[in-house]
Amino acid sequence: SIIEVIEKQMDADESPSYLRGKQIVVTAGPTRESLDPVRFFTNRSSGKMGYAIAEIAANLGAHVTLISGPSPLDVPHGVKRIDVETAEDMYKEVLRHYEQADIVIKAAAVADYRPKITFDQKMKKQEESLVVEMERTQDILKALGEKKEQQYLVGFAAETTNALQYGKEKLDRKNLDAVIINDVSQEGAGFSGDTNEATFISKQGRVEQLPLSSKRQIARQLFSLIEEELKGVEQ
Amino acid sequence: SIIEVIEKQMDADESPSYLRGKQIVVTAGPTRESLDPVRFFTNRSSGKMGYAIAEIAANLGAHVTLISGPSPLDVPHGVKRIDVETAEDMYKEVLRHYEQADIVIKAAAVADYRPKITFDQKMKKQEESLVVEMERTQDILKALGEKKEQQYLVGFAAETTNALQYGKEKLDRKNLDAVIINDVSQEGAGFSGDTNEATFISKQGRVEQLPLSSKRQIARQLFSLIEEELKGVEQ
Repeated sequence: SIIEVIEKQMDADESPSYLRGKQIVVTAGPTRESLDPVRFFTNRSSGKMGYAIAEIAANLGAHVTLISGPSPLDVPHGVKRIDVETAEDMYKEVLRHYEQADIVIKAAAVADYRPKITFDQKMKKQEESLVVEMERTQDILKALGEKKEQQYLVGFAAETTNALQYGKEKLDRKNLDAVIINDVSQEGAGFSGDTNEATFISKQGRVEQLPLSSKRQIARQLFSLIEEELKGVEQ
Repeated sequence: SIIEVIEKQMDADESPSYLRGKQIVVTAGPTRESLDPVRFFTNRSSGKMGYAIAEIAANLGAHVTLISGPSPLDVPHGVKRIDVETAEDMYKEVLRHYEQADIVIKAAAVADYRPKITFDQKMKKQEESLVVEMERTQDILKALGEKKEQQYLVGFAAETTNALQYGKEKLDRKNLDAVIINDVSQEGAGFSGDTNEATFISKQGRVEQLPLSSKRQIARQLFSLIEEELKGVEQ
């Protein structure tokens, strides 16, 4: 649309951006964890937040790799998308791009459990009840925190209770540089909508409220904050 | 597109159709069965087959109600869509429209199990494993078969093994008038693609192969077969 063209030009006009030429890896969307060829576990992530982040980063001149779970969204202009389905696929692809990355933003809602057994054939329904044993998937963010060198690592925390407290704990426990906290129980925040409302907390101690606005606006604010953070470290 | 416009005109030209003015209920898409506000069980149905059926039925002059689980597809022109999420929602909506229906085509891939407990708050991941107890959902097709009066009732069977045999058993067990059998292990058949390959089996004993073609073409053939079936009964 014409609005997107103008916005893109506005993003470009803000250059020379700190992001120009930076390698940015963004993850987005849900993952799917199969029980059989037909049935799977997933979650309500639409991918919109991650795709908005990838789009804005590309507009700001970064080299953007978007590692995406299943999503009906179009690939933003100038972004390289890598499609994955499972948490395991996503882990492998993120690791493969981690070493070269300057900034990594994990906006995907990766399944934290998957069925222990995936059946090759569609299960027949027979019994009145079914017990599905689930096991933990790889904790990608934790693994990235442990391997962190030059990367500025940003996680998301989607919570329905005590959002701020859980978010802070996640920042510490996973050795992140920043965490963006969504209270998904709030109207207008979270998964499927076009708007979001969030709190940015950084290891350096920055705490910023990002008031309710479009996911693109949230993405712009996020990169302004990251730029301040990165400049702060260099001074 | 121009092709759709031409096809639509061609469908209309085939009128006066047997379907003109008939009340047709079509179900489509997957259902979602929540474990908590974020996580859910679902399946790989795209809704494309059901939406194609609804579109062709409307083109042929029927009054079409499309009861649809979550799908990114657009509502076909002239079709009334009712959105549902769970198997339970779908059951209620189908029942509400059943009495007035002349033809009911259940193309939805309704979840047959749902978590016994749906948590109000997002579950925290903690343990290394998680046991999810699932219970059967209402068998909608079976319930419709039991309540059947004037309705011509069509089910789908998506199978990966012994497709034909399971399909025939389903026809009998659920008191259907016809069943369309997909072997979803075949290339080009089944959930997410634009094509399908199927076998139509009716209570009257008709067995027709519907060779690999677009889901719209499959829908056209389906209505030709239903028309023959309905005329056969009246003679």
